[in-house]
Amino acid sequence: MTAQTILFDFSVDSEKTSDSKQRQEIAKIVRGEVENIFPQIELAYQMTMEDGFFCVFTENKETMITLRIFQQGLVTMNIEYYLEDGKEPLMSFDSSKRLENILAKKLKVHSGQVLPTLKRGDVARYFPSSDERIIEYDIDALVFEERSPFQKIQILHSKTLGNMLILDELQNIAESDLIYTETLMGRGKENYEGKEICILGGGDGALLYELLKEKPKFVVMLEIDELVMQACNKYLNTICGDVLEKRKGDNYEIVVGDCVDYMKKFISEDRKFDYVFGDLTDIPISGAPVGEIWDFIRTILEHSFKILKSDGKYLTHGNGTACTESLELFEDQLRLLRPKVKFTTSKAFVPSFMEEWLFYQVSLA
Amino acid sequence: MTAQTILFDFSVDSEKTSDSKQRQEIAKIVRGEVENIFPQIELAYQMTMEDGFFCVFTENKETMITLRIFQQGLVTMNIEYYLEDGKEPLMSFDSSKRLENILAKKLKVHSGQVLPTLKRGDVARYFPSSDERIIEYDIDALVFEERSPFQKIQILHSKTLGNMLILDELQNIAESDLIYTETLMGRGKENYEGKEICILGGGDGALLYELLKEKPKFVVMLEIDELVMQACNKYLNTICGDVLEKRKGDNYEIVVGDCVDYMKKFISEDRKFDYVFGDLTDIPISGAPVGEIWDFIRTILEHSFKILKSDGKYLTHGNGTACTESLELFEDQLRLLRPKVKFTTSKAFVPSFMEEWLFYQVSLA
Repeated sequence: MTAQTILFDFSVDSEKTSDSKQRQEIAKIVRGEVENIFPQIELAYQMTMEDGFFCVFTENKETMITLRIFQQGLVTMNIEYYLEDGKEPLMSFDSSKRLENILAKKLKVHSGQVLPTLKRGDVARYFPSSDERIIEYDIDALVFEERSPFQKIQILHSKTLGNMLILDELQNIAESDLIYTETLMGRGKENYEGKEICILGGGDGALLYELLKEKPKFVVMLEIDELVMQACNKYLNTICGDVLEKRKGDNYEIVVGDCVDYMKKFISEDRKFDYVFGDLTDIPISGAPVGEIWDFIRTILEHSFKILKSDGKYLTHGNGTACTESLELFEDQLRLLRPKVKFTTSKAFVPSFMEEWLFYQVSLA
Repeated sequence: MTAQTILFDFSVDSEKTSDSKQRQEIAKIVRGEVENIFPQIELAYQMTMEDGFFCVFTENKETMITLRIFQQGLVTMNIEYYLEDGKEPLMSFDSSKRLENILAKKLKVHSGQVLPTLKRGDVARYFPSSDERIIEYDIDALVFEERSPFQKIQILHSKTLGNMLILDELQNIAESDLIYTETLMGRGKENYEGKEICILGGGDGALLYELLKEKPKFVVMLEIDELVMQACNKYLNTICGDVLEKRKGDNYEIVVGDCVDYMKKFISEDRKFDYVFGDLTDIPISGAPVGEIWDFIRTILEHSFKILKSDGKYLTHGNGTACTESLELFEDQLRLLRPKVKFTTSKAFVPSFMEEWLFYQVSLA
């Protein structure tokens, strides 16, 4: 059971839309064409404005159609109705495209479009890209959902990407995303053999699992959210193997706790690492570099360099390559670090993010 | 200038939504929270139904908010307003998420979501995946748009994918998509040296360009749409080089015309090829294998095997791997071919399709 929402828009001459008579004419044309598909429609309500028009059509109080005409030369129409499971939609994407094409001709538009039908009330399937574009995933099951003290944790199953970890309604990693982990760790470029490594976060276990294949001396992973690890151990074991199940081995240990506390402890013990991985919260996408998240990012960076050997490296994910503003803000933070650091970047198209992502390799200058 | 459309949905106990008093209560809660963001809102219209509720709120006849309560336990809210270029949105994605979170708590929902803000009336940015999921691209410019006798041709620029060829409002290929061409041709698996090749379609020139790097004896490309080639030559030359500019060379020739006509000509001349590429219309995604497009697909397949040497191969794209129904229908067509054929498949995640795509290699059984 979902509400089906079909959104049309048409750009027309603003001369037409700035005249109230012509707006009525547009409404009449739209109604005429919509009537071919929904023959019982009636006008339920209309609002006339000095600079626009809005009305509601309904068929049997079941299908609701709102039409809006903006004086600036824009017409929007929203069709919405309820669809029971297993029933055929009243309007397929093809038939909505046909209606769009007919209206585009009749309204003599500059451009027109109809969006693929939006399905609401069902399992979550719409997620934003890093730059807040809408992406619909081919989700066919909610596998796991629970709220930890830190966040809402979901495992959703995508037909093509496998199980996906969703934290607070944002994509984190999926079974399809080995490339994410390999680019984060710079597989083939960095040599981890015999090295000491600290992972900040990394609760999905994929980074730890891949690092252990490279024969490090020891990896310590600091993850705050026990429940994330339980969920990933159960539903993402194709990418994390048994590391979240075992929690420790000859050359690794997972510690459940606040990574900042543990970094402070390492600093006091003068414990140093060859690599520190920042596998925590995403960088905010824009705005001034102020607020809790940026404070957190700065804290993480400063502490990380205090537990790194002088020739050590801090490796982390950045953001979608489309988020240039966010990436610049992050790089500004790197430039403010003392002692000074230098950095390189690498990028990869991450399947479950459906976009190219930037990764940073930071070391002392 | 765009209309901003923000869609919320909440799943609640159907006990609540099947009672008219409780529906009024829900509407009151929603209005209260929306008022915190749009303080001037007024009720413009409401429709009471036996089994549901619908109303329109407005702020200054500028922001229109429709609220609908379905008895089955679903609440949808649509907020829509006009945004001038350069102005700040009335509601950021973050603030819409905050509103969603507050309402989710107050309405005691099972689940709730708000979709990333939809922008309407601007350059086309929403395209469907092969299985009709909505995907928003980071389009920042309409580079070219013209209608040929065959189709609407657009070149759009994506910030991360480069220039994209759009035919009749569907994604075709982008500068990011070398993997598409390489998977279609099976680079590294097939040996094209000294071979005779026929490309059906392929107007973007990328396949021809890549094949010529493999030292074939001769490639003939049959493309019907002159205007597509002109557009791609101008705006996609990073993927097609100079092949569309030159049109012929020592070992290739592009013929502008209907590929079926030319295949008939080749059959009458007994001209045979080592490889035929089907780089034409996409396979329809579902339904019975009837209608013009399926007739066309069958015609192409039958003719292709008549111009192939007995050890030749027909290589083509299939569809998104999520479109299992469509792929099965296509494979049914392959099984019906006489003489009998056998086939293998390969797949790749194509950046500008934002999904994994299946490719076929078909040869005589």
